[in-house]
Amino acid sequence: MTIAGSRTETLNRRLRLGMVGGGRGAFIGAVHRIAARLDDRWELVAGALSSDPERARLSGADLLLPPERTYDSFQDMARREAERGDRIDAVAIVTPNHAHAAAAEAFLQAGIHVICDKPLTTTRQEAERLAQLAHESGLIFAVTHNYTGYPLVRQARAMVAGGELGAIRLVQVEYAQDWLATRVEDTGSKQAEWRTDPARSGPAGAVGDIGTHAFNLAEFIAGDEVASLAAELHTFVEGRRLDDNAHMMLRFASGAKGMLWCSQVAAGQENGLRIRVYGEKAGLEWHQENPNILLFSPLGEPPRIIRRNGYGANEVSRAASRIPGGHPEGYLEGFAQLYTDVAEQIAARIEGRAPDSFSLQVPTVEHGVRGVRFIEAAVRSSQDEAAWIDV
Amino acid sequence: MTIAGSRTETLNRRLRLGMVGGGRGAFIGAVHRIAARLDDRWELVAGALSSDPERARLSGADLLLPPERTYDSFQDMARREAERGDRIDAVAIVTPNHAHAAAAEAFLQAGIHVICDKPLTTTRQEAERLAQLAHESGLIFAVTHNYTGYPLVRQARAMVAGGELGAIRLVQVEYAQDWLATRVEDTGSKQAEWRTDPARSGPAGAVGDIGTHAFNLAEFIAGDEVASLAAELHTFVEGRRLDDNAHMMLRFASGAKGMLWCSQVAAGQENGLRIRVYGEKAGLEWHQENPNILLFSPLGEPPRIIRRNGYGANEVSRAASRIPGGHPEGYLEGFAQLYTDVAEQIAARIEGRAPDSFSLQVPTVEHGVRGVRFIEAAVRSSQDEAAWIDV
Amino acid sequence: MTIAGSRTETLNRRLRLGMVGGGRGAFIGAVHRIAARLDDRWELVAGALSSDPERARLSGADLLLPPERTYDSFQDMARREAERGDRIDAVAIVTPNHAHAAAAEAFLQAGIHVICDKPLTTTRQEAERLAQLAHESGLIFAVTHNYTGYPLVRQARAMVAGGELGAIRLVQVEYAQDWLATRVEDTGSKQAEWRTDPARSGPAGAVGDIGTHAFNLAEFIAGDEVASLAAELHTFVEGRRLDDNAHMMLRFASGAKGMLWCSQVAAGQENGLRIRVYGEKAGLEWHQENPNILLFSPLGEPPRIIRRNGYGANEVSRAASRIPGGHPEGYLEGFAQLYTDVAEQIAARIEGRAPDSFSLQVPTVEHGVRGVRFIEAAVRSSQDEAAWIDV
Amino acid sequence: MTIAGSRTETLNRRLRLGMVGGGRGAFIGAVHRIAARLDDRWELVAGALSSDPERARLSGADLLLPPERTYDSFQDMARREAERGDRIDAVAIVTPNHAHAAAAEAFLQAGIHVICDKPLTTTRQEAERLAQLAHESGLIFAVTHNYTGYPLVRQARAMVAGGELGAIRLVQVEYAQDWLATRVEDTGSKQAEWRTDPARSGPAGAVGDIGTHAFNLAEFIAGDEVASLAAELHTFVEGRRLDDNAHMMLRFASGAKGMLWCSQVAAGQENGLRIRVYGEKAGLEWHQENPNILLFSPLGEPPRIIRRNGYGANEVSRAASRIPGGHPEGYLEGFAQLYTDVAEQIAARIEGRAPDSFSLQVPTVEHGVRGVRFIEAAVRSSQDEAAWIDV
Repeated sequence: MTIAGSRTETLNRRLRLGMVGGGRGAFIGAVHRIAARLDDRWELVAGALSSDPERARLSGADLLLPPERTYDSFQDMARREAERGDRIDAVAIVTPNHAHAAAAEAFLQAGIHVICDKPLTTTRQEAERLAQLAHESGLIFAVTHNYTGYPLVRQARAMVAGGELGAIRLVQVEYAQDWLATRVEDTGSKQAEWRTDPARSGPAGAVGDIGTHAFNLAEFIAGDEVASLAAELHTFVEGRRLDDNAHMMLRFASGAKGMLWCSQVAAGQENGLRIRVYGEKAGLEWHQENPNILLFSPLGEPPRIIRRNGYGANEVSRAASRIPGGHPEGYLEGFAQLYTDVAEQIAARIEGRAPDSFSLQVPTVEHGVRGVRFIEAAVRSSQDEAAWIDV
Repeated sequence: MTIAGSRTETLNRRLRLGMVGGGRGAFIGAVHRIAARLDDRWELVAGALSSDPERARLSGADLLLPPERTYDSFQDMARREAERGDRIDAVAIVTPNHAHAAAAEAFLQAGIHVICDKPLTTTRQEAERLAQLAHESGLIFAVTHNYTGYPLVRQARAMVAGGELGAIRLVQVEYAQDWLATRVEDTGSKQAEWRTDPARSGPAGAVGDIGTHAFNLAEFIAGDEVASLAAELHTFVEGRRLDDNAHMMLRFASGAKGMLWCSQVAAGQENGLRIRVYGEKAGLEWHQENPNILLFSPLGEPPRIIRRNGYGANEVSRAASRIPGGHPEGYLEGFAQLYTDVAEQIAARIEGRAPDSFSLQVPTVEHGVRGVRFIEAAVRSSQDEAAWIDV
Repeated sequence: MTIAGSRTETLNRRLRLGMVGGGRGAFIGAVHRIAARLDDRWELVAGALSSDPERARLSGADLLLPPERTYDSFQDMARREAERGDRIDAVAIVTPNHAHAAAAEAFLQAGIHVICDKPLTTTRQEAERLAQLAHESGLIFAVTHNYTGYPLVRQARAMVAGGELGAIRLVQVEYAQDWLATRVEDTGSKQAEWRTDPARSGPAGAVGDIGTHAFNLAEFIAGDEVASLAAELHTFVEGRRLDDNAHMMLRFASGAKGMLWCSQVAAGQENGLRIRVYGEKAGLEWHQENPNILLFSPLGEPPRIIRRNGYGANEVSRAASRIPGGHPEGYLEGFAQLYTDVAEQIAARIEGRAPDSFSLQVPTVEHGVRGVRFIEAAVRSSQDEAAWIDV
Repeated sequence: MTIAGSRTETLNRRLRLGMVGGGRGAFIGAVHRIAARLDDRWELVAGALSSDPERARLSGADLLLPPERTYDSFQDMARREAERGDRIDAVAIVTPNHAHAAAAEAFLQAGIHVICDKPLTTTRQEAERLAQLAHESGLIFAVTHNYTGYPLVRQARAMVAGGELGAIRLVQVEYAQDWLATRVEDTGSKQAEWRTDPARSGPAGAVGDIGTHAFNLAEFIAGDEVASLAAELHTFVEGRRLDDNAHMMLRFASGAKGMLWCSQVAAGQENGLRIRVYGEKAGLEWHQENPNILLFSPLGEPPRIIRRNGYGANEVSRAASRIPGGHPEGYLEGFAQLYTDVAEQIAARIEGRAPDSFSLQVPTVEHGVRGVRFIEAAVRSSQDEAAWIDV
């Protein structure tokens, strides 16, 4: 029985986290905060929680932040935190997509590690610029493709890498929801508004919001890159300005083939991220909505139900588990794993040691760039009758 | 509680069935025989069970056929049965694909109703010629897309037709198996041999064998036609002469979109035919391997588990059920339903009355033609970098 | 791929079956007829289908029986069939429970093999008398505890017998339905009427109707006998004359322990027969409503999903399968297996050879007696505050 | 979309938590700490984490506790905390069972609210004395029957209370594990050692450890009390000193009936707590290992899948949810809910207002007493051939 958060460390304090975005009315910011807190490696100490100063102040008070570290703008925060002796160890950027790039750049230039939500940016130019800045700075830049934090996703990746499936032939991935099946953006939903607004969401809707997760998951588990794709994006809800569904065929660099479906109009689907990988020797299946189970089907043998932290769980997945098998972990724990891993990476730097190798699975700015290139390729393919476009 | 086979009828005999193909070593012939027998509407009385005379004779004896109705060839059988007073009411053609056309033509010309396995033929020309012959003859020509016989598939079709899903947006269909994940055709498997042989199987492998079922099911439930498709066919097993996997995007005539995946190399999949249909108001999901359940998800309400012949089952599905909910029916019962429906159609003609309307759901030669056109379109699209091809 | 019904045999005719009960309005009779027909080993040629002569005649005509073999009474049928050269090989007795004993006795005395529905009789005296008559006659006497015909039930039994679970510790069995959750017997349901009528059903309701199946299944798979039980029977529906629910604790002869729950008032349960067996080395789980899967959990390893006729299926279950894995078989096929096995036993006698050993798994009159003793013990225990009573 | 932890409050600080037990090598202590932290209502500031002083000190340092609040004994801690101005608001007692009573008493007498693990004590006398002390003190005394914190468990309870099932007839509950299927207590497992040691665990093993959870869950959801039970306890693993399995029949005060099975030797079961409740109008089913789903089966309608925070989720379950449906929550979130609810109760006292009514669902010392009485009744019944014993 392991408790991920209690891994021995010598650093005798929690790391200090700042946050940009995530004020009152936001959704994902609160998730980041729980995730940061869960394994007790972080303390939230500063924030520029809203671009509206009054909302920023009230949100800071909600979270018991010291008033002097409740900032009106990320620029202000980056500058003033950089000057403090007890400056934040990292910043979490949880704004709508269009605001990621400028904020990330400001903190990189202030010498502060970055944890950024996905998709990384709304244009490829911004994404590649961020990647270059991150490299030059030598700072840690994590992108919260949070599904990579699930123990059995990591187990799946390790099984593929370890050859348990043989050469991969097929990757079938899908991410289906139904919350945008009607014109929700006209009903006052802040979440729906910005996600269907090209100015804030970027050139794609469902493809950017959830397609990127599916794409990231496929590449993460397959340990391979999508070389090219043929895509058709659809907008089913009348008057919507971005896609709410997309169909794609994938060609991987290794020669594997795949399909990707993402939808926000599939009635009855809540958060149906599901992946199946088939190799010459075996198949794997994982479903985010029941994430404590990984189905492993060696060719010619009965399928096996591998349970998180149960029999058949490998050390990679055990390292990302807190509690015994049968005691379900879920979305927040998976998300927390990324924060815990980033903490380990930072602590290792502070302590002058190599980080726990498991912690290096956190997606980086390069994965963020891949996501933005995926969006761009999908949009271009769809504009050209689903022609094959390189990613 | 209904017993499909005991529907009241006035015809005071069982119908007489002949069979072409299905001798020793065959698989699907035996399935057809069970299907014909199950509801007690048919009696097998004649056969040209193999193109090898000795095997034909032995196979006839196995099945207790009278020697004088155990024929050496389908030509002989068609001719001699046509002359008998107690001639067969219908013939079942269950040979490999390439032999369907000639046999079907012979029986049509002999004035005998035809039940033919799928895909209808190996070329579009043959298929269209058969359709024309069937029309001119006025005879019944059923094609055993057997999955249309499952009660809950029929329920799904009726729910779509009745508007319970609203306008259809998406049809996601897949049919995945793993039995050809290795070079089985070299191990003496008769089933694998002919299915991977272009001369007997036609221009496609998995696409023809199971893709056609998926395609038929999608059109059957959606009550719509696929207008065009973009496809990529793959051959993963080295040295195989036909495709063993295919990915497709679909555009329906109504504007609905879809994806189709068929595979015979997906480790862990036995006979994974699965369909999901999403409309403006609700979604449906059905999986052949657990066919007694239909998941119905009205937008904004908890998903409902409709069980065969259970609460929520409509009259269409009840009419195709034999036993109460909770007592699972399966593949053979679904297949039997087609035989029972054809019997009803024939009996109605004999008795000079209209057939039970439920019986008219059996796929016809037109559906067979659609299947052949689907194969042709998929092959052509794949040869042209997944260009969109009309079906 | 196996087709159970086509097992090679030298007998060059179908066996002849007669039926007592099962006329118009009955349920289980039609199931028996499909079961007998499915594998093509039987032909129904005679019947005393109702105690009402007119209904008997009409029912015989429905089934295309020759008028001269459509009898008014089982006595008449037993006597006259015994005199025929082409007499029936076996009789199926499918009346309400109270009428089993007399009919079975008549046919035994006529020298005709018996296939009798369960529970065998309504009193222990009758049951034991039948067992004695059967023994003295040397005739085959099968009792249709049909769940023993499911391939994976037989696999489970063989796995226990083969030591794959180690010494058995626990048997948890349940059979839950909801069709009697209200006063259905007052609504004209013939099925509900006799099942809740002590005169026709015997001393127990749910316990006799479905508890006996659960009990039989537990003993069948465990390969063990229940030594004693402590039971409480309940009648939840006001005015009902027999139990509609029962709770029991079981002590097996081997020292294993168990629980048995049967209910006909559990809202949402259709035909929920489910068994779990735990041994020192592994556990097994099977659910009748999804019968093509057997969950096998070796201690310390991931649970394995054994699928009917799929990987991991043993020869016992393969012998009882008709079609490949992934093509679901169900209730009718399981029921058919008993008929096919009885046919094999009879054919072997006619042909003077040993029967296929798999065919000997059919429950016999002894299992019928066990069922009646189980009912009696349960009723007595419940009358005595759930005291432990020997079975 | 709700985030439970961010419910508006006026108290402008986190509550201060102390802990007794839970030092290095312990399991449940770490769970309590995550649970306390998750919704950001608590800060751990003090501890007597081990009865071994050195281990207590090291454990405190692991958790970044101030050295002056890292105590050698709970007595010391209770006394000294009571004297501080910033004293702890509550203490969490997470020692083995036998040590609960003395610690709880010490803190009650120090005027500090108590959160105590289950079973409350090892004797009924101690339990009742604690209840009396708690009442006299007026302090909050929560018992961590953590499964009551799951949103859909609360939904189930509310649905029963609201009459959606009609009068309850049946409660079938089970809690099955396999981790004690072999002699684990001899392998150095600290968890197994004390749980199988009568001196530390009390008079029962599985019954106390997990049977109490099942019992509590049954009473919690049914909104009813078990009036009496008939039980048989078993010890399957040779040499074990306490039961590792138990079978029980239950009679509820309302007239409902039930069964309870708990086991720690059921191969393949990880943490299989499952409950089914059947009323006159509907049934409910919930399984802890897939806790984001509640199956609701109104009689005569298709079963509905109610998903946490999804369609059909009621306000009670929404209030206990952090994230949208489809984003699974699990064991830690359920556990956290109890801490959040206790925080709300304490905050309300501090602020002189009524607590949010949802927070009052936390089990109290009375439920702890029920659990101890349940254990005692089960042991006595088993000693007397499963006689009915009042609880």
